[in-house]
Amino acid sequence: MKNVAVRNIQRANRALIQGLAEMGAATVHEAQGRCGLMQHYMRPIYAGARVAGSAITVLAHPGDNWMLHVAPELAQEGDIVVVGLSAVNTDGMFGDLLATSYRAQGIQGLVIDAGCRDVATLTKMDFPVWSRAVSAKGTVKATPGSVNLPIVCGGEQVNPGDVIVADDDGVVIVPRKDVERVHAAAQAREENEVDKRRRLASGELSLDIYSMREPLARAGLVYVEDATEADNV
Amino acid sequence: MKNVAVRNIQRANRALIQGLAEMGAATVHEAQGRCGLMQHYMRPIYAGARVAGSAITVLAHPGDNWMLHVAPELAQEGDIVVVGLSAVNTDGMFGDLLATSYRAQGIQGLVIDAGCRDVATLTKMDFPVWSRAVSAKGTVKATPGSVNLPIVCGGEQVNPGDVIVADDDGVVIVPRKDVERVHAAAQAREENEVDKRRRLASGELSLDIYSMREPLARAGLVYVEDATEADNV
Amino acid sequence: MKNVAVRNIQRANRALIQGLAEMGAATVHEAQGRCGLMQHYMRPIYAGARVAGSAITVLAHPGDNWMLHVAPELAQEGDIVVVGLSAVNTDGMFGDLLATSYRAQGIQGLVIDAGCRDVATLTKMDFPVWSRAVSAKGTVKATPGSVNLPIVCGGEQVNPGDVIVADDDGVVIVPRKDVERVHAAAQAREENEVDKRRRLASGELSLDIYSMREPLARAGLVYVEDATEADNV
Amino acid sequence: MKNVAVRNIQRANRALIQGLAEMGAATVHEAQGRCGLMQHYMRPIYAGARVAGSAITVLAHPGDNWMLHVAPELAQEGDIVVVGLSAVNTDGMFGDLLATSYRAQGIQGLVIDAGCRDVATLTKMDFPVWSRAVSAKGTVKATPGSVNLPIVCGGEQVNPGDVIVADDDGVVIVPRKDVERVHAAAQAREENEVDKRRRLASGELSLDIYSMREPLARAGLVYVEDATEADNV
Amino acid sequence: MKNVAVRNIQRANRALIQGLAEMGAATVHEAQGRCGLMQHYMRPIYAGARVAGSAITVLAHPGDNWMLHVAPELAQEGDIVVVGLSAVNTDGMFGDLLATSYRAQGIQGLVIDAGCRDVATLTKMDFPVWSRAVSAKGTVKATPGSVNLPIVCGGEQVNPGDVIVADDDGVVIVPRKDVERVHAAAQAREENEVDKRRRLASGELSLDIYSMREPLARAGLVYVEDATEADNV
Amino acid sequence: MKNVAVRNIQRANRALIQGLAEMGAATVHEAQGRCGLMQHYMRPIYAGARVAGSAITVLAHPGDNWMLHVAPELAQEGDIVVVGLSAVNTDGMFGDLLATSYRAQGIQGLVIDAGCRDVATLTKMDFPVWSRAVSAKGTVKATPGSVNLPIVCGGEQVNPGDVIVADDDGVVIVPRKDVERVHAAAQAREENEVDKRRRLASGELSLDIYSMREPLARAGLVYVEDATEADNV
Repeated sequence: MKNVAVRNIQRANRALIQGLAEMGAATVHEAQGRCGLMQHYMRPIYAGARVAGSAITVLAHPGDNWMLHVAPELAQEGDIVVVGLSAVNTDGMFGDLLATSYRAQGIQGLVIDAGCRDVATLTKMDFPVWSRAVSAKGTVKATPGSVNLPIVCGGEQVNPGDVIVADDDGVVIVPRKDVERVHAAAQAREENEVDKRRRLASGELSLDIYSMREPLARAGLVYVEDATEADNV
Repeated sequence: MKNVAVRNIQRANRALIQGLAEMGAATVHEAQGRCGLMQHYMRPIYAGARVAGSAITVLAHPGDNWMLHVAPELAQEGDIVVVGLSAVNTDGMFGDLLATSYRAQGIQGLVIDAGCRDVATLTKMDFPVWSRAVSAKGTVKATPGSVNLPIVCGGEQVNPGDVIVADDDGVVIVPRKDVERVHAAAQAREENEVDKRRRLASGELSLDIYSMREPLARAGLVYVEDATEADNV
Repeated sequence: MKNVAVRNIQRANRALIQGLAEMGAATVHEAQGRCGLMQHYMRPIYAGARVAGSAITVLAHPGDNWMLHVAPELAQEGDIVVVGLSAVNTDGMFGDLLATSYRAQGIQGLVIDAGCRDVATLTKMDFPVWSRAVSAKGTVKATPGSVNLPIVCGGEQVNPGDVIVADDDGVVIVPRKDVERVHAAAQAREENEVDKRRRLASGELSLDIYSMREPLARAGLVYVEDATEADNV
Repeated sequence: MKNVAVRNIQRANRALIQGLAEMGAATVHEAQGRCGLMQHYMRPIYAGARVAGSAITVLAHPGDNWMLHVAPELAQEGDIVVVGLSAVNTDGMFGDLLATSYRAQGIQGLVIDAGCRDVATLTKMDFPVWSRAVSAKGTVKATPGSVNLPIVCGGEQVNPGDVIVADDDGVVIVPRKDVERVHAAAQAREENEVDKRRRLASGELSLDIYSMREPLARAGLVYVEDATEADNV
Repeated sequence: MKNVAVRNIQRANRALIQGLAEMGAATVHEAQGRCGLMQHYMRPIYAGARVAGSAITVLAHPGDNWMLHVAPELAQEGDIVVVGLSAVNTDGMFGDLLATSYRAQGIQGLVIDAGCRDVATLTKMDFPVWSRAVSAKGTVKATPGSVNLPIVCGGEQVNPGDVIVADDDGVVIVPRKDVERVHAAAQAREENEVDKRRRLASGELSLDIYSMREPLARAGLVYVEDATEADNV
Repeated sequence: MKNVAVRNIQRANRALIQGLAEMGAATVHEAQGRCGLMQHYMRPIYAGARVAGSAITVLAHPGDNWMLHVAPELAQEGDIVVVGLSAVNTDGMFGDLLATSYRAQGIQGLVIDAGCRDVATLTKMDFPVWSRAVSAKGTVKATPGSVNLPIVCGGEQVNPGDVIVADDDGVVIVPRKDVERVHAAAQAREENEVDKRRRLASGELSLDIYSMREPLARAGLVYVEDATEADNV
């Protein structure tokens, strides 16, 4: 394991990142071909946040948050710090003091494959965190890790500068070089959905809107009138 | 596995169903003899919802929400769609587009032994969902399942037309033919509790209200004055 | 297993207990040397509560809440009831009737290594509970346990009269005889943090405030300019 | 919940059941269309057993094994007792005394969605059990349940007389009326595999045996020579 | 948390301890009133071991096995080292070198609420370990803990000198001062079972041996001839 | 997600790989600085296997084992196939037919972050598999993935050509370019341990062999004679 902190990383276009934030994790995840989603145990500490930003990646060790102090100096306005752990851990590695510092450095939020604490204060500060756990358990500062090397977080690989899109539905990673393509695909999905939503709200069925009746029949779905008839299928 | 959709199911009396909704999952569960409760991992996506309705049962396959598009056509005003999976899965099989359609068809809510997404929008829509997980992960439409055949959801069997009572405490299933009996028993419990609540609030102890002192003594409970005395028991 | 209820326990100083409540679980946990924290699955049923009180300890059996009826008579104003189980269980052993009684006896809150129900009502009552699960599942009253003997709850030992500090970050136990020492240490931490928070908010880095640059270098952390350079480390 | 014990159930043909046992859980599961498999937490207490038999279904309550004493009188030579629980439980509800009785009544094995104990003795007796857990925890005999009514076990519904096929790969349920069809399909699979196995062992690739190259290309799989070339795809 | 190692502890009578080993965890657990059983995730690293001994209790910290080196000097022939952790951890804190040392000091086995490694070698050495996990992950020696103070392990409190009974069914703790009473009760159970086993093996039903038919009927169990009749109950 | 299969990868020196196999996962993991260990849920399907080989990396989708058919053509004698999943899954993606093919192509074993089936046959064949689960659940061949691109498996990143060391203690990944350094370090550890093992076996204490007494005292460990004295510390 290298104990390295990389000062400069490449970032995606800021306007595109902002566009991804507005569309949210579910749409972005679909738009990039249903990949890059962290496991569902990565949950927001409060409901309603939605952010996107460039990943500052941190590798930390269980019970040790030292590298979370190194990250902010290397971050830029709008970045999101993403923390992978060298082993499964739920200690509360991040609290209100670090959040105060992160905010002062322009960092938008935190994604951490460990625990978070001071969640009442973080909620009041409106500083969003996605974590594996909430835990009051504090940490030491004894073992270095890395900043801005590739990591694994929430079961997915994250490279520095990848775009993180996070909201109540979870955390999605968009590789930096795919941002433009994914943004365009997500936008197309959104536009497509406006009309669909209107038609569904008016009582049209998705079976008809998406022309699913024929493929369902071909796939073998049989309609019957009642349970007795079902017994005879 | 039959790929069948049953159009017509029998439903319980609507007024009784509404009565169960008002009494809530915990009271109903007690009233029917402490059975029919789904496992506690079935959680609401937001706090405060309380509904009851007839079950439209759906069997779906992991990563495939095709049958969730078939269900609304077979539902009536006030129904609740209940989705069992053929294998453990946490994919986000239901989102705001389907919710728009379900609402337009009069469906009150969803109970799904898989994931749900667009939870921020569903919360704003006040469309309640009880699920195993929240996940942005989208799904395909490739394999048919069934609608309105018996399923297993949250560890319990659900038959089409059974009454689902769901709130912050969980999801209870009342077999259709037991609804009247359970409603009566639940109502009796509720009435009984009004006086109990008043007496407890005034400082009377449940030990006295329920006459528990003598049975506790008989069961072997011994009161001592302090820890030293406890050592000698 | 002794079926004993101990009437009198020793309690810590009330003003100190109140002081611990104000500082919260994370600070108190740090102040007493990062020990005494229950496992992170012990979660509040609603966000925002923060309490501290003397522990009335209860040992109960799976599916049986009988001893939760014995506890309130032995409690004093401000106490917190802490329930350990003789085997893993998630049944809803506590609901709004018991909460009404507990409140009438001056009990501030409940910590239970099992399930809780009626959470919507408890939230409206503002009666805080930390539990392993939320579950509508009711319980019987058949087997006695103990009150005010040592128990295990949330993976930690709790002695009667120990001080419980609980908030959104979790549940911490402070041994009764350590309360004064821990209170002083927690207060020192808090005072120390005021200035830190101000400096961090103004943009100073924790790397500088805590003089971490030199120890990080000594521990082997290397800064490089970009990814290419990192490959050569 | 009905407290009923049904004396007479219908069973599938014994020779077909024996045939399913020889083919094992994985083959049978495939042959009936990849359904009816209990969740993978249902594990054998020792490696190497493989059985099939008609299900005697038991519904029991957490911590209470009373109905496991009722089942053997209703069983016939070769049956398998399958136990569902009214709530999640891991207590050791079955041990060597019951196994002695079950064997004397001709019962082949046990499938239980709870715990099992005396596993060293059961292993020596060669009495196979598939369970959710191994646990020394004993049980009481206080609450009746049912025998030979439909149950849920390992996440699947089991009807009395369904055929259970269990081995190191898990537990599969074949509905009684499907046994003939599934047996035929499983046999066809087995015969088909003999030649495949020989060809694969001789070094032929499944890509060629199953003619997968063209469909893979059509589905978008691209072969490249090395990592550099992959970067440019 | 005290960093203390206590040199001298009291132990139970060696012959009684040996007697408990012969009867095993399930019988001992029943005999002492179904308490004192560690949670079922505490599993042996290989099948077939059965030991009993006086507990040398160790409190260790996640990722740190320093105190496991302190324990052997304080142990006597036949002792069992029991390790609790200050936070959930699965690191492999014990391997073949420590086992070599433990054996040389006469220690019979290890119970650890964390991970174990070198399990192939430990199996060959026939040195039994019950652990929460198997993991190759090594540990540091940086933070002291305690030896021979009370700990929590596997969800149960263990005091130094308590008797540990461990086999394939799990790990039971018998408080030192209860050993004589529990031994007698366990022996009575065993003697009682000899005749039962013989009668059960000969085909007598436990329903008759334990006279359960009448209590079952009283508790509401109804026998019916077939499924149709069950519908009418 | 790229649907790419890379034909040629670089591999480490075969003799060094063989050396790592002989030293095993725990020693190798320590030797490379306690990193690169997959999570402990990755377990062998039978005890006693120990292998090392170059990783052929596969990315597959839940319920779909198509890419496991692509891997063998790209493998060489002694390789180990390592399968990451695009979402958590426990389906039995690998069985005896594929194992027959893998063996014919010289593949030594499989590491898969999903399920495995036919484990009785694989055990007889002595074909080792480390998996997240055992499951009879079969899979389809519908969606392509990748071979020999970087993947995440068991919570760790694996690059094609990295060396996999797997035994009863778990699965360790050694980056290809670190193999020589790690081999040397592991060998040094092993040699160092021979003398230690001899001294420990003769009764010397590790406290003395590693000169731990003084650092333990400095870290604050206090020895006392008995429990009473401990109370006063």
